[in-house]
Amino acid sequence: MYIGPKQLSILGSTGSIGTQTLDIVRKFPEEFKVAGLSCNSNIGLLKKQIEEFKPKIVAVFDEEKADELKVDIPVYKGMDGLLKVAVLGEANTVVNSLVGSIGVLPTVKAIENLKNVALANKETLVTAGSVVMDKLKFHKTTLLPIDSEHSAILQCLQGSKIEDVNKITITCSGGAFRDKTKEDLLMVKAADALQHPTWNMGAKITIDCATLMNKGFEVIEAHWLYGLDYSKIDVIVHPQSTIHSLVEFKDNSVIAQLGMPDMKIPIQYALAYRKRWANSELPKLKLNDVGKMTFKEPDLERFPCLAMAYDSGIKGGTLPAVMNAANEVAVKYFLEDKIKFLEIPRLIMEMMDSHRIIKNPSLDEIMDVDKKVKEDTKRMIEEK
Amino acid sequence: MYIGPKQLSILGSTGSIGTQTLDIVRKFPEEFKVAGLSCNSNIGLLKKQIEEFKPKIVAVFDEEKADELKVDIPVYKGMDGLLKVAVLGEANTVVNSLVGSIGVLPTVKAIENLKNVALANKETLVTAGSVVMDKLKFHKTTLLPIDSEHSAILQCLQGSKIEDVNKITITCSGGAFRDKTKEDLLMVKAADALQHPTWNMGAKITIDCATLMNKGFEVIEAHWLYGLDYSKIDVIVHPQSTIHSLVEFKDNSVIAQLGMPDMKIPIQYALAYRKRWANSELPKLKLNDVGKMTFKEPDLERFPCLAMAYDSGIKGGTLPAVMNAANEVAVKYFLEDKIKFLEIPRLIMEMMDSHRIIKNPSLDEIMDVDKKVKEDTKRMIEEK
Repeated sequence: MYIGPKQLSILGSTGSIGTQTLDIVRKFPEEFKVAGLSCNSNIGLLKKQIEEFKPKIVAVFDEEKADELKVDIPVYKGMDGLLKVAVLGEANTVVNSLVGSIGVLPTVKAIENLKNVALANKETLVTAGSVVMDKLKFHKTTLLPIDSEHSAILQCLQGSKIEDVNKITITCSGGAFRDKTKEDLLMVKAADALQHPTWNMGAKITIDCATLMNKGFEVIEAHWLYGLDYSKIDVIVHPQSTIHSLVEFKDNSVIAQLGMPDMKIPIQYALAYRKRWANSELPKLKLNDVGKMTFKEPDLERFPCLAMAYDSGIKGGTLPAVMNAANEVAVKYFLEDKIKFLEIPRLIMEMMDSHRIIKNPSLDEIMDVDKKVKEDTKRMIEEK
Repeated sequence: MYIGPKQLSILGSTGSIGTQTLDIVRKFPEEFKVAGLSCNSNIGLLKKQIEEFKPKIVAVFDEEKADELKVDIPVYKGMDGLLKVAVLGEANTVVNSLVGSIGVLPTVKAIENLKNVALANKETLVTAGSVVMDKLKFHKTTLLPIDSEHSAILQCLQGSKIEDVNKITITCSGGAFRDKTKEDLLMVKAADALQHPTWNMGAKITIDCATLMNKGFEVIEAHWLYGLDYSKIDVIVHPQSTIHSLVEFKDNSVIAQLGMPDMKIPIQYALAYRKRWANSELPKLKLNDVGKMTFKEPDLERFPCLAMAYDSGIKGGTLPAVMNAANEVAVKYFLEDKIKFLEIPRLIMEMMDSHRIIKNPSLDEIMDVDKKVKEDTKRMIEEK
């Protein structure tokens, strides 16, 4: 039997996860080919990636930028473009590293077209977890997490049964404002957060880390990925980000995955799933250099987004989509210095409170809620 | 198919590991029956165990004590007695928690009689690793570690291949004298060590922990258990003993096992192998209570036994048996306050230096070396 290289379509190829995914592809030319790429607007970098990796097609989400890109392969644009890359016949695996709920549809369409998905887009499972899990079961395709925390849990579960799990504990750096007082948090700006202590990430996710909303997303994602009740999902603040998550089994033995805070290890693990390839570009953990690891409970009073995420996940239906949509808009405005940090949770809370939950929503209902809540949140901010 | 309960023979049933093994047995009466028990000399406790667990036979190593024990089942004595319990027809699994090289023969005889072995006796693999591994392969029986560190490694390796391992790191509390200066170590007494910081263990192993010889034993055991080169086995000092050991894979991802420093978890894991049974007596790890974990390199200058263990393991043959025999005698004298702490490594070093290594020794050759080195070490101490 001959198993050829994995044919990848990478959504968000010019972002942090996308470029690191291509670093892995570059390192293992026998294992991977690039079938499709997409970016938001960075067509300069996309052009270089096209020259190096020779995809069949590309998409640029920003329609004006798409028109500017001159290359000798098809260039698609907007959401239609993303979907073309997601369902591309030549691809068997889609890496979804889009940011925001625009990542939902490409994941769903990729699954419907029998692609395996390596998922970095957090909003997919937060917004449409039940729909996505149903699609995966129906189409019998695989979804693997790229997130370091969920990759850690997946690694800890190898050789074990999910029924044997007491609980999982997701670690959390605590975000950029971990040590700020409640009073400090009244004054902080986006620029303060964008020097995140441990991980090098995009702007939106850095703010989500600072509010702990990102950790809330991961709780909801873990619920769907591993089929665990929210009562079995804990979060602990671990500023050094050396332990990436832990699984406690029924006999109270705990398995953890550790590593340097670097996304390449989980990206490679998702792409090589179950194989452990030596790669000199992956950093080595030296416990002697780490020296110390600390742990404490998250402070839900200073960082209410985490509690809101549990709440939305437990109530379910369209509520997590509401939370996510309000968060996306609020973070956008915070990044533009148009609202204050503590307005982010306040806006989300208002949107969640005023929403009438739809139980077992369809994908269309979810996407409608996403759109409407985004408009409402925007209006609420603008009209202030 | 009906799979009946495991029939256990427990060597050293009145010691720390033995009594905790019986705690597990008591908790799972459907899973385990006790076929045989043995103790060194604590016939008071042995009698209670006989009444509760109703073994077919028992052995008492101390021959005078054996004669004192009045029960209505056969009582055997001395090494012959231990071997009778080890090869007992009714038993399918032997728990070997003997202390010292007297544990070697019972392990070997148990394997030859097709028993599975749950091994807490460190000296078995240190002294006769190659012989024991050959026997296991020949008789196709299983040997599972009870030691928390080796249990941790076994758990970290579940679902993985040993070829994918870069290295393992065995954690070490640092022992009772971790923070003593070289000058302090000139003066320390056995009584100082016997309040060991983290684990509750027998006297001999507590001294072995204080010298780091115990960690050296574990390095040699890991070499045999997991077939790893010494260059792939690291030791790190981790005073909190929360992480019990770690495995680094080829992709630099690290899997670790954590838990409260309590032997019941690894004992239950060995007895239930691959099953995770809920047991309210097993303590739960609370990272928030742990608060902090620290790591540093072991100091081989203050604690030369660890370096000697690597050296003996790498040179191989009968040298680890020499080291172990000299250590056993030296520790015995130290426990009786007849030699000083730093004489332990010095005596071992002298014995190792004056030994001519036998390559690929037979079990008889190993046991002869063990006996002779013990006599020589004793003489050297007494004649001073």
